[in-house]
Amino acid sequence: MEQIVEKPYVIGLDMGGTNSVFGIVDQRGTIKSQTAIKTQAYPDVKDYVKAAVEALQPALDVVGGIDYIKGMGIGAPNGNFYTGNIEYAANLVWEGVVPIAQMFEDALGVPCRVTNDANAAAMGEMTYGVARGMKNFIMITLGTGVGSGIVVDGKIVYGSDGFAGELGHFVVDHTPAGRKCGCGRSGCLETYCSATGVARTAREILEKSDARSLLREMNPAEITSFDVFKAAEKGDPVALEIFEFTGRMLGTACADFTTFNTPEAFVFFGGLTKAGDYLMNPLRKAYDENVLSLFKGNAKLLISSLNGSEAAVLGASALGWE
Amino acid sequence: MEQIVEKPYVIGLDMGGTNSVFGIVDQRGTIKSQTAIKTQAYPDVKDYVKAAVEALQPALDVVGGIDYIKGMGIGAPNGNFYTGNIEYAANLVWEGVVPIAQMFEDALGVPCRVTNDANAAAMGEMTYGVARGMKNFIMITLGTGVGSGIVVDGKIVYGSDGFAGELGHFVVDHTPAGRKCGCGRSGCLETYCSATGVARTAREILEKSDARSLLREMNPAEITSFDVFKAAEKGDPVALEIFEFTGRMLGTACADFTTFNTPEAFVFFGGLTKAGDYLMNPLRKAYDENVLSLFKGNAKLLISSLNGSEAAVLGASALGWE
Repeated sequence: MEQIVEKPYVIGLDMGGTNSVFGIVDQRGTIKSQTAIKTQAYPDVKDYVKAAVEALQPALDVVGGIDYIKGMGIGAPNGNFYTGNIEYAANLVWEGVVPIAQMFEDALGVPCRVTNDANAAAMGEMTYGVARGMKNFIMITLGTGVGSGIVVDGKIVYGSDGFAGELGHFVVDHTPAGRKCGCGRSGCLETYCSATGVARTAREILEKSDARSLLREMNPAEITSFDVFKAAEKGDPVALEIFEFTGRMLGTACADFTTFNTPEAFVFFGGLTKAGDYLMNPLRKAYDENVLSLFKGNAKLLISSLNGSEAAVLGASALGWE
Repeated sequence: MEQIVEKPYVIGLDMGGTNSVFGIVDQRGTIKSQTAIKTQAYPDVKDYVKAAVEALQPALDVVGGIDYIKGMGIGAPNGNFYTGNIEYAANLVWEGVVPIAQMFEDALGVPCRVTNDANAAAMGEMTYGVARGMKNFIMITLGTGVGSGIVVDGKIVYGSDGFAGELGHFVVDHTPAGRKCGCGRSGCLETYCSATGVARTAREILEKSDARSLLREMNPAEITSFDVFKAAEKGDPVALEIFEFTGRMLGTACADFTTFNTPEAFVFFGGLTKAGDYLMNPLRKAYDENVLSLFKGNAKLLISSLNGSEAAVLGASALGWE
């Protein structure tokens, strides 16, 4: 039985450095209409918001117009839930602090919330995905980097500053061998378990051993995590070893993360999850071997159930219901 | 101006394997009266509760009797806030699951809550101590073991099972060199930064080097963290090196923990904090060196302001206000 509400839709905006994708979403997580603009085409954020509102009109018309919209949610790099600002985002064209939530509120006349993409993904899973009904879970996004969204008592943990839940920059290797990270430090989880981390592992393993591998046919500098996946599909032992290593690093880290909020589940999302069991089997094994016995068997290790191309918009839109 | 309430006191119970200490506490955190019984003298928990209620009578009379009590809080090993039970506590005489909160509610007629001692300590800091007014902080107790209580949005994180916040069993050394831990695994924070961890570090450093030290006058097996402190007070370089190592391990771990809930503060409590700057200086240095630049300068690193001998009772009592 569907709940009858006056404003049955929300707007979700997945803002990336290149593209901004907008979706009008209903309570079941169905995207009723969609539109997009180029983020980097607007050096002035005021022009960006103006272009966004224009592009949104036809998408809004599909559901009857702005009067049927309860709110808007934005998933953006360095989006701060508390302030509604985007703050010093390295991969956006706008510098400094951008009051993006306020700008869209003024332009559209509906409440607007912003957070980073990993927190938005967690909201999406909790609202429409595999984490529906869960009160405590940890979302891990495995893309170019590693992001995370931590949920405690049914709410995203934003921390004292709005930027909590940065598990991609949890240092998992404090030894001198820890890999250099873009954040200026070494050994961050992201340097091992992101798509770029997998490519790095590929180069390291190929260099260290003489084992035959389909990956040797490529220029090492050009190997991507998708190449590793394709090789794994053909039974390539080096490719399997790469995912084994990646899964083990991630499973061991998650076993440690469990001590924080004893989650009901870890939900993994992003390109790397396409590797499926190549990644998840060693991940599960390492998790079980490393977790404190008190917490054994507590947490499910799940892959996101949301359609990859829609998940970011759905995640952002989930903020619009708040 | 004091707020006028009908029931201005709570009961706090700090339950240890040997002793159980009860305090009647007012809203400012003043212990108005106190009493104690031997925990291990009662193999049957029913007799324990009966003895406790009897011992409490004179302490209650001081404040006018049970009618002036708003509630009771218990800090106990393996205390589960959700169920009100003590579950499989290794260092208590009672086996299995003990419905301790329900038993005290039945016996006293006031609401009763239970949690573990580290969470109780966090409640105490938030209610009466240095964390008053803070919404996000992490309490770290440095005793025989290392415990923790994590606060998000002004509430203790109990997680999916009531046992969240076990940072003492966060594995900080995943290499084969990680120290064996009582939990059956290796490399847990507790094996380095507890009082016993400090004694272990002392033995390791004395064995590895020939440096002169006051600690060489002792049987290595009998060195305690307090001996190390006394030697440090006399300027003993090995003792200083031991605290340097301990502080560095703890500061580095806290820098990682920050990624979880970006706390306003870490609050340290327990015997080891008596080491003061010997511990806190390297701790602060390691924290600053290791924390993600985004979070630099966010968190204060504080020592508990509560009187050591009263803190556990105060912490437990804070649960009684809920």
